[in-house]
Amino acid sequence: MRIEIICTGDEVLTGKIVNSNFSHISQKLEDVGLSVTWGTTVGDDRETLLRAFRLAADRADAVIVNGGLGPTVDDLSQEVAAQAAGVELVLDAAWLARMEEFFRRRSRVMPPNNRKQAMLPVTAELLDNPIGTACGFALDVGRARFFFTPGVPRELTRMLEEQIVPRLLARSGLQTAIHLKRFHSYGLGESHVDALLAGVEELVPDGSVKLGFRAHYPQLETKLTVRGTDMDDVRAKLEPVEREVRKRLGNFILAEDDQTLEGVVLAALAGRQATLSIVETFTSGQIAARLAHLPGAERVFRRGVVARALDGVSAAVGLEGPPAAGALTRETAETVARAARRQTGATHALAVLIELDDGADRIDLGGTICLAIATEQETASRRSRILGGREWIRLGAVELGLDCLRRHLQGLPVHERIDFEKV
Amino acid sequence: MRIEIICTGDEVLTGKIVNSNFSHISQKLEDVGLSVTWGTTVGDDRETLLRAFRLAADRADAVIVNGGLGPTVDDLSQEVAAQAAGVELVLDAAWLARMEEFFRRRSRVMPPNNRKQAMLPVTAELLDNPIGTACGFALDVGRARFFFTPGVPRELTRMLEEQIVPRLLARSGLQTAIHLKRFHSYGLGESHVDALLAGVEELVPDGSVKLGFRAHYPQLETKLTVRGTDMDDVRAKLEPVEREVRKRLGNFILAEDDQTLEGVVLAALAGRQATLSIVETFTSGQIAARLAHLPGAERVFRRGVVARALDGVSAAVGLEGPPAAGALTRETAETVARAARRQTGATHALAVLIELDDGADRIDLGGTICLAIATEQETASRRSRILGGREWIRLGAVELGLDCLRRHLQGLPVHERIDFEKV
Repeated sequence: MRIEIICTGDEVLTGKIVNSNFSHISQKLEDVGLSVTWGTTVGDDRETLLRAFRLAADRADAVIVNGGLGPTVDDLSQEVAAQAAGVELVLDAAWLARMEEFFRRRSRVMPPNNRKQAMLPVTAELLDNPIGTACGFALDVGRARFFFTPGVPRELTRMLEEQIVPRLLARSGLQTAIHLKRFHSYGLGESHVDALLAGVEELVPDGSVKLGFRAHYPQLETKLTVRGTDMDDVRAKLEPVEREVRKRLGNFILAEDDQTLEGVVLAALAGRQATLSIVETFTSGQIAARLAHLPGAERVFRRGVVARALDGVSAAVGLEGPPAAGALTRETAETVARAARRQTGATHALAVLIELDDGADRIDLGGTICLAIATEQETASRRSRILGGREWIRLGAVELGLDCLRRHLQGLPVHERIDFEKV
Repeated sequence: MRIEIICTGDEVLTGKIVNSNFSHISQKLEDVGLSVTWGTTVGDDRETLLRAFRLAADRADAVIVNGGLGPTVDDLSQEVAAQAAGVELVLDAAWLARMEEFFRRRSRVMPPNNRKQAMLPVTAELLDNPIGTACGFALDVGRARFFFTPGVPRELTRMLEEQIVPRLLARSGLQTAIHLKRFHSYGLGESHVDALLAGVEELVPDGSVKLGFRAHYPQLETKLTVRGTDMDDVRAKLEPVEREVRKRLGNFILAEDDQTLEGVVLAALAGRQATLSIVETFTSGQIAARLAHLPGAERVFRRGVVARALDGVSAAVGLEGPPAAGALTRETAETVARAARRQTGATHALAVLIELDDGADRIDLGGTICLAIATEQETASRRSRILGGREWIRLGAVELGLDCLRRHLQGLPVHERIDFEKV
């Protein structure tokens, strides 16, 4: 099935906003085994919109149009859709009532120009928008089925999942039970994970499990898309593959599905009524900023300290005198973590200390990272070298620090070598 | 002049990466008074690429193609360009030599498949890429001039500015001296600034100054695009408008052109050999993270402290006993800032303390912000209320804290009311 996306709106066309709706739609379709073949971006211009609709209707089986469903004069999607399909616009009384109710519940009166949002092509099928005033709709233009969606990202997301993906799957003849299983890891590159997972798809011989990746340094997302006749069938197919992925990636899996690394760390600490203090240098507060603001963190997060020089770190955690010059070692990090724990009364302290190489920023600039995690019983630590410039080192060190804490809390070794470090 | 953009590549089409190159190109053209009329996104597929090129050649005067110039088999731009133009590919010996030199200087031997990057359509004009191996090129397809650019953002940016924009301006018949002047502000909304600046364009009656905005909360960018016969003419036209914008936006202008708020603050501190300590609560390290990692910050940044509770803040800065319950006031922030300054020996201390409203996150959740800046001579402070949910409050408080510090360092009042606060 050939699927196209048309993104409309002057803000997108002029680059005032980055078009993340396009990649969102495209990824969602990939996740269920569908593919987009063509993307078009046009502004709020009647003639151009009509031309774009007609071209897509000629080429595609299904077209998703995003944007242009708002109440203002430059929102033209319904009008041009009707024109392209050669039909009239009529008032959808049920949607008008829904909109009036929407405003009433917010103690507001519906402005008259919102009425426009209930005008739909007479042959259109309404697509519900439970969280906004722009209803979506589906409509045949030529031989293609068009799906019109709102530009507001959370409204689009919901309509896509609940209304459009099921219709596209039904039209495509694909089995309709689909599940996307996601694993998040840190420390292994995409090609390494690809090699480690060689053959896992074949554990289900009928080809209904598809493996994919999405790399966003420093994390990697490993995705399993599973298709089946129903959810029981999907679960049965997923189970052996999922088990194998967990076995092969092992300790590197830091979270699954909608979990995040910081969420996992926070939950592990909260679950044992633990508290955390953090000491940072070149990461400059980014480690604390990943978790200290989360709901629930106010009961777990004790203190964060940032200093750029080692003597500043020592002073901040109440150590006497600066460490010997050039002395960044695992032991330094251990001493600092223990001191931070004592000083703040936290059950856990994480110290991530970094020494940057000398000189200006460049692609092969390196940094030495010494980190330690102290509890009442013990202190774990590791040393790493990361090359790749200031920003790369900073991002890597934030993730390394949080991931080692995750490993420690889960009783896993903190030393396993990662692909991003040089030895 | 009708300009189109064609973005190529499976990674963009499938949504694996968000297409920020499109908005970058489009914004750059807007900034010099040109407009994009149509955008197309297609994958690495010969037939689809050819179709996209031909459609664009029919509609447009100029077409910018992005991506597909790499050394691998799925990089098809040169081949399909030659096919669309009906000409042969030939080896560009000069570019081949440049590439070999490129590798030699990095002590590497050029892999044989990179040779492909020097194969250009015989009628093509080479567009220099001083920082990569993918040369760009320009070529007529039908009645349109095509410009082929690399997908790597920094290579694209440079080629666009140095090679393509001048050619497009020359073809468009627009006067070729163009300057973009930018002002960054915090605290005034886009429509407010628009109203404040009413009429400034008319200070130059020939219409050669254009006013525009780009809002990225919490900051707003105000842009003046000036066209003239040469740079002297541009400067003469810009001068009265620029002066008027500075006068009307006054203290709200925090930086101009490529400056950043954190860069301005850091430079102001470094310029007077000052040092800075920061105390944060719900912002969770984000304020420190904006400046402590910057080159040069190691001499300025003394210490950052994060704690989520007021008694944790007091303990961290060495104050005796917790403040009275529910006692977040300007005075609390002043006491904390003075203590942090004393404790760390910094010349300046910034304390940004936040009390979030109770309850789950929601669009009208509010936060009370009390911030103070302490120096040896004095302590300045302010209290603000921001509504808009946890993330909105956090972003706003980071900016408010840094901007008040900027104002203090520049001898400006820290109390001026901002549009984002509720009173």
